[in-house]
Amino acid sequence: MPSPSAASVQRLTLAEPLTLDSGQVLNGLEVAYETYGSLAADRANAVLVCHALTGDQYLASPHPITGKPGWWQRMVGPGKPIDTDRFYVICANVLGSCMGSTGPASMAADGAPFAMRFPVITIRDMVAAQVALLDALGIARLHAVVGGSMGGMQALSLAANFPARAAAVLVIASAARQSAQNIAFHEVGRQAIMADPAWAGGAYYAGRKKGPEAGLAVARMAAHITYLSEEGMHEKFGRRLQARPDGTAGAKTFGFDADFQVESYLRHQGLSFTDRFDANSYLYITRAMDYFDLAEEHGGRLANAFAGSDARFCVVSFDTDWLYPTAEARSVVHALSAAGAAVSFVELSAPFGHDSFLLDVPALDRVVAGFLGNGG
Amino acid sequence: MPSPSAASVQRLTLAEPLTLDSGQVLNGLEVAYETYGSLAADRANAVLVCHALTGDQYLASPHPITGKPGWWQRMVGPGKPIDTDRFYVICANVLGSCMGSTGPASMAADGAPFAMRFPVITIRDMVAAQVALLDALGIARLHAVVGGSMGGMQALSLAANFPARAAAVLVIASAARQSAQNIAFHEVGRQAIMADPAWAGGAYYAGRKKGPEAGLAVARMAAHITYLSEEGMHEKFGRRLQARPDGTAGAKTFGFDADFQVESYLRHQGLSFTDRFDANSYLYITRAMDYFDLAEEHGGRLANAFAGSDARFCVVSFDTDWLYPTAEARSVVHALSAAGAAVSFVELSAPFGHDSFLLDVPALDRVVAGFLGNGG
Repeated sequence: MPSPSAASVQRLTLAEPLTLDSGQVLNGLEVAYETYGSLAADRANAVLVCHALTGDQYLASPHPITGKPGWWQRMVGPGKPIDTDRFYVICANVLGSCMGSTGPASMAADGAPFAMRFPVITIRDMVAAQVALLDALGIARLHAVVGGSMGGMQALSLAANFPARAAAVLVIASAARQSAQNIAFHEVGRQAIMADPAWAGGAYYAGRKKGPEAGLAVARMAAHITYLSEEGMHEKFGRRLQARPDGTAGAKTFGFDADFQVESYLRHQGLSFTDRFDANSYLYITRAMDYFDLAEEHGGRLANAFAGSDARFCVVSFDTDWLYPTAEARSVVHALSAAGAAVSFVELSAPFGHDSFLLDVPALDRVVAGFLGNGG
Repeated sequence: MPSPSAASVQRLTLAEPLTLDSGQVLNGLEVAYETYGSLAADRANAVLVCHALTGDQYLASPHPITGKPGWWQRMVGPGKPIDTDRFYVICANVLGSCMGSTGPASMAADGAPFAMRFPVITIRDMVAAQVALLDALGIARLHAVVGGSMGGMQALSLAANFPARAAAVLVIASAARQSAQNIAFHEVGRQAIMADPAWAGGAYYAGRKKGPEAGLAVARMAAHITYLSEEGMHEKFGRRLQARPDGTAGAKTFGFDADFQVESYLRHQGLSFTDRFDANSYLYITRAMDYFDLAEEHGGRLANAFAGSDARFCVVSFDTDWLYPTAEARSVVHALSAAGAAVSFVELSAPFGHDSFLLDVPALDRVVAGFLGNGG
């Protein structure tokens, strides 16, 4: 695994067992993480960034498998909205993932991979693992916790379940619960993976067998559509035809090749994903998202979740995001207001749908910088 | 195959070869169809109903495989909006499908199923087969052609390419072209089918082999989400848990069973679909829809498509339909207006998303009855 250039590669093994929401206990849990910037002497300048479903800790440093820049390189770095000249930025691979933290591909006590013996985890379990990391790093209270999409769920869960641990909470393109439609899309992805004979009940790690790459690619394709907006896809691809391999202009082939650019793009998204992601991790992490319902965890009333919090909150949505639409963000804001929390809310206009939180949206940069207190 | 009760089972073998848009020629093409009501002496009371992607000719009579009522039973029958006491209603299984019309499961000249040797077809090819049926039935001009979703595409294509053949054209929840997002969803379905090893390059008909049922079920699940509205799914399922097989109340299992009702519903939709539909037909028909762009067929200007038409048009959309949203309907209406056609347009409010055209929407009944001229 190549060493990222601008960050330390670090991994913590938790000394204490972690009791999960399911009641199961994980021993020797490992949390792989990256840090950027320096921790101040008073340990008060830490910003925890929580990653999304298929994200990882390579926030602002090259991905060791793909070699691509960090997924939030544009947001995190010296002089950037999350300014590493000022903040000690931490990003941990979530529990259940496949980039170094304990997940279904990890070895169980019997020396074989967990595979589907891995316990089903929750967003709160992911957060508990990160809080254990903060403990290990000696960080009692974060300057801020920040996350988009599933990262926003973690930020909300941290605020609700560990209210003393963050002074500020920034939630982007996210929700306090997974909607029926989003559960449905996840279920399609899971069924695509589990329908692939190469999944083999999850036991595909042994020997040189390939995993359920075809199923995982289909899952990624379906999910990828939900990350974009209809308008964005129309702008980017429309009904334009794919140029032929020989360089000639595209034409309908009256066959099943990728005639349309959007088909070719989706196929590429699906295939390239399988190089860097574990199918079982996809099952577990989507399940954790589907189980997420912060109100349910707190007596059925979302405001209760935030009753103990004295943090400042900022909630951001995007007008073209139909996966975590503004209505979901508003529910969070209403609950925070009802709980007496200090909260600001902004719906940003951006053409990229849910993916807007990852892309070039200067207004988001300004909101993030301003909320973290380095806007001036 | 059981005989439907209220309709004649009929099949026409075309005497003439059909030259397809691809340039390929199909000989001995068969068109399976159902009729309801009686053809008037002047042969002027025929209404052609065109079915959607996974529909069939069993419009108002039980489906011979599932035994379920016809898919538009609520709309077609004596005294109903498409009144079989007045109209001779025809519904033909589309070319490429699997309920009796020639498709990939049909025998080619060599006595083996076409499978993927079947030529790629277009919406216009489907319409040409139906016009040949009208010729055989001695129907020069339809009282009306009616269709929802892909049926609406056929109605528009008939109006554009065979303008003398229909006096009235009713297009519901449809569009004059397939959008990038819709192509993308179709491509996910096709990839799910083709990723299933049981697809075997389409050659799964021989012997007792099962087809790509797992892949087809995943395709159907993904498509089914697009047929509903987010609000409708929230109303119908929300985050409610599935009761356990033993009758006890639902609970999270911390596993990968269908904990949520929406998961169980989707799985059922996927599995039951494979009993009645051929996976290769799904490939060919989705491809035909993706290729559909009526403007492109007519010099890049949609109004040109309707220049030769003296038909009355009615275009209907549903406010919660995000698959064929109102904006697409408006484009059709604008083009018809630009072409000088008589057109009425209505956006109906209904909670069911794209599926609204199939479901209990009384306002749609009134629009259909009124437009066909039996509203009084």
